[in-house]
Amino acid sequence: MGERVFSLEGKDGASRARAGVLRTKHGEVKTPVFMPVGTQGSVKAVSPEELRALGAQIVLGNTYHLHVRPGEDLIREFGGLHRFMAWGGPILTDSGGFQVFSLAKLRKISEEGVKFQNHLDGAPTFLSPERSMEIQRDLGSDIVMAFDECPPHPCSHGDAERSLGLTLRWAERCKRWWGEQEGEKPLVFGIVQGSCYPDLRRRSAEALQEIGFDGYAIGGVSVGEPEEEMMAAVEYAEPFLPEDQPRYAMGLGTPPQLLEMVARGVDMFDCVLPTRLARNGTAFTAAGTINLKNAEFARDQGPIEAKCVCPACRDFTRGYLRHLVKAGEILALRLISLHNLHFYLALMRRAREAILDGSFEKFRREFVGGYRVHESAEVLLD
Amino acid sequence: MGERVFSLEGKDGASRARAGVLRTKHGEVKTPVFMPVGTQGSVKAVSPEELRALGAQIVLGNTYHLHVRPGEDLIREFGGLHRFMAWGGPILTDSGGFQVFSLAKLRKISEEGVKFQNHLDGAPTFLSPERSMEIQRDLGSDIVMAFDECPPHPCSHGDAERSLGLTLRWAERCKRWWGEQEGEKPLVFGIVQGSCYPDLRRRSAEALQEIGFDGYAIGGVSVGEPEEEMMAAVEYAEPFLPEDQPRYAMGLGTPPQLLEMVARGVDMFDCVLPTRLARNGTAFTAAGTINLKNAEFARDQGPIEAKCVCPACRDFTRGYLRHLVKAGEILALRLISLHNLHFYLALMRRAREAILDGSFEKFRREFVGGYRVHESAEVLLD
Repeated sequence: MGERVFSLEGKDGASRARAGVLRTKHGEVKTPVFMPVGTQGSVKAVSPEELRALGAQIVLGNTYHLHVRPGEDLIREFGGLHRFMAWGGPILTDSGGFQVFSLAKLRKISEEGVKFQNHLDGAPTFLSPERSMEIQRDLGSDIVMAFDECPPHPCSHGDAERSLGLTLRWAERCKRWWGEQEGEKPLVFGIVQGSCYPDLRRRSAEALQEIGFDGYAIGGVSVGEPEEEMMAAVEYAEPFLPEDQPRYAMGLGTPPQLLEMVARGVDMFDCVLPTRLARNGTAFTAAGTINLKNAEFARDQGPIEAKCVCPACRDFTRGYLRHLVKAGEILALRLISLHNLHFYLALMRRAREAILDGSFEKFRREFVGGYRVHESAEVLLD
Repeated sequence: MGERVFSLEGKDGASRARAGVLRTKHGEVKTPVFMPVGTQGSVKAVSPEELRALGAQIVLGNTYHLHVRPGEDLIREFGGLHRFMAWGGPILTDSGGFQVFSLAKLRKISEEGVKFQNHLDGAPTFLSPERSMEIQRDLGSDIVMAFDECPPHPCSHGDAERSLGLTLRWAERCKRWWGEQEGEKPLVFGIVQGSCYPDLRRRSAEALQEIGFDGYAIGGVSVGEPEEEMMAAVEYAEPFLPEDQPRYAMGLGTPPQLLEMVARGVDMFDCVLPTRLARNGTAFTAAGTINLKNAEFARDQGPIEAKCVCPACRDFTRGYLRHLVKAGEILALRLISLHNLHFYLALMRRAREAILDGSFEKFRREFVGGYRVHESAEVLLD
């Protein structure tokens, strides 16, 4: 194997926070890390060149969306997702499971897999552990996710237990499928489920390790549950995950939530908030989000955030951005997307530095204390 | 005065084509030149940094749109349009006249000016030669256009003559207004009208020169008339315009039309086609436009155009762009806008080189001969 897949470079004394390095086919990823979401093979409104300039290390691609359109066969023909979208760095692909359960119609789940009609044209589609692995292989992913069932919130203990059983059997099939493949393989991550139940989260973490994965994700969070339950889901699982492997909390969250998750031992994050809120005119600042549509910004000659070094804050005022938002100009959402992605990426870089120099707890406390969460931002998490 | 506003650097032997340099407060403009259109203070989907990288020398701002939103007072507070939109190069502003006649509602024209309800919220608004000059001054424009009446197509000789009379009286008022101002002044261009009538186009050109402007635009073209009439309108006026001043054909056209206009002695152009067609998935190539939505491009691993050095062709395939267009991704129209703007800008650079090295006629013939105009592109000119 040579070098380890994941090395810890530092641990915080006052929390479970860690700084590490994850090694993939397409390069190293320094953790904690935020992964911009490129659902359909593009991080919305942003170019790969801009992502590199922002310091993005790894992007996420959605297996479900890319399978439905343009299809993994076409992407493989083009040399894989990296070449297709002109992103030379690491790519993590999800399993498609979450979208099957949130977007697809007429879903029918069996032991074998899931039959459904896709959200675009209703065409009958089938996903299973093996199909998901095949698709992610064809995309050329660096980090593939096991195919899981994501139970809804709320969910009874009985239903969550039955669902977890299926997810674990599917995880074994994913692992087995990769064992039968030749040649260079991606990293494969298992996904901890178990809804809000401590016993199930623990059982899930332990059973996945017996199967053996390169990293472990915490799934079934940010599905509508209150923030305390989200944090609890991580706390229930984390002590039972191996310290020397990466942990990934899927699909969240606000900046304070990310720091709280880092403090609970999570290394990797992805979230659509930075780009989705940008399209609504909302920008992140250390004091919370601001909506640039608001009249108060019309004559504001300052940048979105003082001292911010992102391309939007370097050249443009809040007043100009407000004008662009009101006028429906695409440049508005481009610039706010750049700012918001910079905000998330810089937050994780800053957290990493703080972990390494022993100041993480102070940094977390000050950041979370100074950040006011607005309703509008939270709603979009659902 | 020091250096002249406009110097000719070369003339084509076989046509009326010229290569020149136009000097403005914010720098030189080498002609023939294409000016990207930044209607609302932004060239749609493109950043000022990208415009500079594409070699854009000057951009156009729309007085009507900027007056209606966000208003010239606000833009002046921000230090003028250059600082507001972070574009440090020259800016030409139109007079607002064309939009008053194409967008505004409940128009009432008098000798004094035009009362109308704006297209956004119907607020009563008044534009006149003096108001248009004030607004363009507040925007900080480098090249301001006289306020004109743009007659519809078709238009009787009598109506065109009456309209021209008003436009000429308004032109005098614009000139007089600037004569009363202190301090550094922009360049002021007159606008030749006269519909499709040779006598009126000539009278308009001659009368404007008696008033005296820094340059002359040919207006009332690309308003729905056939291409031959558009060319004729230029041919009727051009012989009566001073050779040592710049000529600007407003609001057009297709790439072959631009070259034909250059051959008829026009130096400056603006057109929304490159960015508007991009938003529809249409890209310019030397063989004509292609619509990247078409299924034929799904598996096409080539760039939009072979050997093109634009950012879209450097990194991305037709197949990927088609996917982005079909998926409604903003990156699609960004990349196609960059390609199309590059196409127009490079076409004018190439024309200039050809004029200077004596090969313009050959270049024009070969380009126009190889370019097939599609219906869809022409429709959008209307």
